Amino acid sequence: MLRYSCINTDIKIIGEENGLNLEEEFNNYSAKIADIIRGLNQRKDKPGEWLQWMNLGYNEETVWYVKEFASLVEGRFDNILVLGIGGSTLGGLAVTEAVLKPYWNLLTKEQRNNYPRIFFLDNIDPDSINGILEILDLKKTLVNVITKSGDTAETMSQFMVIKDLMEKTLGDDYRKNIIATTDKKMGILRQLADQEGYKIFYVPDDIGGRFSVFSSIGLVPFALVGLDIEKIINGIKDIDLELKNTDIHQNIAAQGALIHYLMDTKKGKNITVLMPYSSRLKYIPDWYVQLIAESLGKAYNRDGEKVNTGLTPVKAVGASDQHTKLQLLNEGPNDKLTTFIRVGEFDSTINIPKIFEYTGIGYLGGNTLNNLMDAEADSTRVSLADYQRPSITITIDRIDEYHIAQLLYMLEVQTAITGELYNINTFDQPGVEQVKNYVYALMGRAGFEGSANSLQEKMTTV
Amino acid sequence: MLRYSCINTDIKIIGEENGLNLEEEFNNYSAKIADIIRGLNQRKDKPGEWLQWMNLGYNEETVWYVKEFASLVEGRFDNILVLGIGGSTLGGLAVTEAVLKPYWNLLTKEQRNNYPRIFFLDNIDPDSINGILEILDLKKTLVNVITKSGDTAETMSQFMVIKDLMEKTLGDDYRKNIIATTDKKMGILRQLADQEGYKIFYVPDDIGGRFSVFSSIGLVPFALVGLDIEKIINGIKDIDLELKNTDIHQNIAAQGALIHYLMDTKKGKNITVLMPYSSRLKYIPDWYVQLIAESLGKAYNRDGEKVNTGLTPVKAVGASDQHTKLQLLNEGPNDKLTTFIRVGEFDSTINIPKIFEYTGIGYLGGNTLNNLMDAEADSTRVSLADYQRPSITITIDRIDEYHIAQLLYMLEVQTAITGELYNINTFDQPGVEQVKNYVYALMGRAGFEGSANSLQEKMTTV
Repeated sequence: MLRYSCINTDIKIIGEENGLNLEEEFNNYSAKIADIIRGLNQRKDKPGEWLQWMNLGYNEETVWYVKEFASLVEGRFDNILVLGIGGSTLGGLAVTEAVLKPYWNLLTKEQRNNYPRIFFLDNIDPDSINGILEILDLKKTLVNVITKSGDTAETMSQFMVIKDLMEKTLGDDYRKNIIATTDKKMGILRQLADQEGYKIFYVPDDIGGRFSVFSSIGLVPFALVGLDIEKIINGIKDIDLELKNTDIHQNIAAQGALIHYLMDTKKGKNITVLMPYSSRLKYIPDWYVQLIAESLGKAYNRDGEKVNTGLTPVKAVGASDQHTKLQLLNEGPNDKLTTFIRVGEFDSTINIPKIFEYTGIGYLGGNTLNNLMDAEADSTRVSLADYQRPSITITIDRIDEYHIAQLLYMLEVQTAITGELYNINTFDQPGVEQVKNYVYALMGRAGFEGSANSLQEKMTTV
Repeated sequence: MLRYSCINTDIKIIGEENGLNLEEEFNNYSAKIADIIRGLNQRKDKPGEWLQWMNLGYNEETVWYVKEFASLVEGRFDNILVLGIGGSTLGGLAVTEAVLKPYWNLLTKEQRNNYPRIFFLDNIDPDSINGILEILDLKKTLVNVITKSGDTAETMSQFMVIKDLMEKTLGDDYRKNIIATTDKKMGILRQLADQEGYKIFYVPDDIGGRFSVFSSIGLVPFALVGLDIEKIINGIKDIDLELKNTDIHQNIAAQGALIHYLMDTKKGKNITVLMPYSSRLKYIPDWYVQLIAESLGKAYNRDGEKVNTGLTPVKAVGASDQHTKLQLLNEGPNDKLTTFIRVGEFDSTINIPKIFEYTGIGYLGGNTLNNLMDAEADSTRVSLADYQRPSITITIDRIDEYHIAQLLYMLEVQTAITGELYNINTFDQPGVEQVKNYVYALMGRAGFEGSANSLQEKMTTV
């Protein structure tokens, strides 16, 4: 189970100026928090509320379909190439990097138990797309193009380039090497996939990209590389009831949400740092960054007041970033709340041999790298407290499908509750619409000539 | 040459509340900036000023030694394994990822022109170290252990584990597969390397980790994978005189420094976002994050006043992060200054084929991915200005040794000038010393029993 192993936000630990009286605050906010949790669960199935991600722990039917398909194509492909951007790839990258064996794409097929390599193409950089085409045998590659709306310019451009090449390389058979993950009813990709005869997986309604990792968007690539997606769903299911608990004292997502909210609004800590102590978890902060940035960065609240609210999320990885960011965390502006993620037990234990015994590094011998990792994390936590900087520590027992799913799902619930505390719409992103229109205009899409003119004019000065 | 292609910080563009009157400010600060630049160059060669990185463009002798060694071992190794943490690996990772062909470690030996793969082991995670040992044939691996002080606990632990394995696998010959990059006179690694007979490269005095990428710390791995390190040095040399120019109107590092300083101190923008529009440049923000965080995050200024100053650096990569962070940049708190890095010309041009012509994505066909990348960057820049958010755009002509070196060196000079404007010591890191002592204490290093006791006591409550 997921647990907070440490909450260093108390005035007794970090002082009056920076700390919170948590006991008092939990009591003050207990009714409000209960209302929020009740509200989210009541609105959950209402169309247009974008809360369908809260049902993904009960998604056994999709799990069945995805597993069915994965077993059908097992052994046929050497590579999975995921085309997407933002929420269509970040969760996939974070979970596969965590759960698959490290350096997966560099292992031999045997070391991978015959499962394919996996690549997430999350950009339109011509050099790196050229690069990936140099290493992939398209005949042995299954392309999974993911866009909910079906017309994301970056993803569809990637797809047009690669589909064209596949057709030239494979002839008509190329269709068997493409799967589309998109909306059930709408959009160009839905249409094309039908016409062309690609295998399709649907993204349920009312799930935004940043909350989509446990929908077919993530489950399909996970199953294709051999992850146990039943364990993922079970992980969510097992924690979901806990996270529905309306008692803040029993609900770690509610606690995390309230602490982040109060640390920002009362103590000026508007930067949230996520710092796992594990290289395998290194892309989870990237996923978290999108979750927080898009969900909480809002110009207006639900009452239409201009608030320009939002926590700025920052990625860190321990122990490495003790050597890059810790100086700032300790001595810079006291405007950050750091969340550490600790791993109860690593898969491997590595002994540091007793060599160089009579030198200044002799003390390391006889320890393990595991000890050292723990010592680094403990030392950093205490050091932050010494500097009166708040932190929270979440511990997961080990890194596997079950626990990673719980961690990510808890952070989603925490973010949803945080958004309610700010009284904002957690699930829209009005601030990126104009950019999309500008891009359409510059690329010559019909209907965007107005944007094109206004943009060309601005570009002479801006 | 490096240039600012756009400075969107002016009140005429983003309004009085968020903008600066740059013409006026450049004039106000011209004398101070001239003093700072003169001061840095005068103090440059004084021991203890930590400014020796300003001489790395004139480092022809080291270049000669490194090239000599690289040609000596050419063809002998399939892998370079760099052991280090923080500044010992971040610059190497950033530059090799940028300049080498994309997906370098996945290319065949022929595609790599027989140069080895390169791995930067920048953490002590037991799972990922176990993982890398599964894929490397140690007989064909050259290990480059990098620590200036010679006793960094993480790096020396990595080294002890791997040296022990190498000795078991290779017998006495293992010595030929190890090079040490460390201080010339001091430290345990210096001593061990001598005793054991490893090849040694020296890190010059008075260069901190975050300013060390163009010392032997970076040059050795660069040369080993076939980068042209002469071009690197030439790039720095060619831009160095420009960056010594005491006229702010002619010196882009001074301009960048002043803009960041004023945007923080006058306009409350204390978050600096670095966003290259290129996947190959994706680790340059990570390198920048350390540079900014450790250099500018300081509790005290040079007059001993408590200031807790510092810009918080945030990584972004375009176009991908338009789908993760742009919502926050546009609509969240107006507390960020974004620096875009644009690439004048990519190595590859990829046409988007004219397919699906009569669908909603037909407009994309006939364009190139290069067009699209430019459209995304232009649209985002204009969109930020629409929301009255400041940005700066730096353009490099292309991605190669010469231009990447100029970019990184310019950012170093900019950071040094920024530190002077804040009146802080840019080159120390007092806020991480206590953590190191705690780690020593927990790992049982003699002499740290005092720290151990105080730490154990704290850990019961913190």
